[in-house]
Amino acid sequence: MISKLLEFEIQSQGFTDIIDVTGKVRRTLQQEGLKEGTVTIFTPGATASVTTIEYESGAVSDLKSAIERMAPENINYKHDARWGDGNGFSHVRAAIIGPSLCVPVENGNLVLGTWQQIVVIDHDNRPRNRRVVIHLLGTG
Amino acid sequence: MISKLLEFEIQSQGFTDIIDVTGKVRRTLQQEGLKEGTVTIFTPGATASVTTIEYESGAVSDLKSAIERMAPENINYKHDARWGDGNGFSHVRAAIIGPSLCVPVENGNLVLGTWQQIVVIDHDNRPRNRRVVIHLLGTG
Amino acid sequence: MISKLLEFEIQSQGFTDIIDVTGKVRRTLQQEGLKEGTVTIFTPGATASVTTIEYESGAVSDLKSAIERMAPENINYKHDARWGDGNGFSHVRAAIIGPSLCVPVENGNLVLGTWQQIVVIDHDNRPRNRRVVIHLLGTG
Repeated sequence: MISKLLEFEIQSQGFTDIIDVTGKVRRTLQQEGLKEGTVTIFTPGATASVTTIEYESGAVSDLKSAIERMAPENINYKHDARWGDGNGFSHVRAAIIGPSLCVPVENGNLVLGTWQQIVVIDHDNRPRNRRVVIHLLGTG
Repeated sequence: MISKLLEFEIQSQGFTDIIDVTGKVRRTLQQEGLKEGTVTIFTPGATASVTTIEYESGAVSDLKSAIERMAPENINYKHDARWGDGNGFSHVRAAIIGPSLCVPVENGNLVLGTWQQIVVIDHDNRPRNRRVVIHLLGTG
Repeated sequence: MISKLLEFEIQSQGFTDIIDVTGKVRRTLQQEGLKEGTVTIFTPGATASVTTIEYESGAVSDLKSAIERMAPENINYKHDARWGDGNGFSHVRAAIIGPSLCVPVENGNLVLGTWQQIVVIDHDNRPRNRRVVIHLLGTG
């Protein structure tokens, strides 16, 4: 059994910046020799999410629009009234989509569809460096 | 420790087809003798999701309506403008709900509520055969 | 390797009651001596969800408002027409946000952001006692 915790950093621009991390996640598997199991991908921080999408500019833009409809940037948020952060919309968006994703591993590779990529969404209202934490579990 | 990757196929009609896979997932546990642990359920492909719901026709229909409100089929999607697939709404819906679910296992059975079933949602705009990938982790 | 299933109870008021369970989850790690791995947090029952948020009253209230916009309490639900439970909105909300969350563990602690807490959301339309089931996987 392999149980291994790893992490990498990404730079984001915030404001629903959607970043493809598939290559970085795949590299961790290969470095550690995980052949079969599950990879958990997690973003520490209350204003980011992890999910999958076809990473082409049309679908990425469509997802941003849907997220804006779900929790618009320019309505009133009590978080902003209380703390003045201006990122109330970011917190709501991140909580609904969620910070964790689990992807199975088969023959040393991620079990993804052909047009399916793993993405981190940075909902915050400013550029940030983000840790992405990976836990590998399974057999080598 | 048991670490075992399995899969099964489902046939779906697309257009937010919501399919109860609880029985199939449960059968994998029992075949492999997993007594305690976690099952990860994952749909490869960028237009499907996994979650839980009370699988009765009313709640299933209500969920479809809420998903339609969240990302309506008949608004403009840049994915469609660019690729002509006509399934821009499918991509957005799948990304928000997410392709993975983890369910604990206790005494050789899924730890679900009495009225809670595991479902795959096929958001695509045509009938499809879908792989559902299961990873079992825990003790026998 | 450690593989351990645990649970605790919470009391909720329903109606999108958002409850911080971070302390209770952290205590399970420390009791069991998990140093590195993943914790899966799961709510049995079709009307509850698990996610993370900055647990301060402003952000918590903003999330409630967004959930109300996503699946309003006072529209018609077929679940209610059929079963008379009056909690059709609860089922829809729970299915979209989802009942499972996976959080990595490092140096015996949860890998969360400074302002990020693990929360159970009870979407039901009445007070309930809820089981929260935890599975720990990794190394001690």
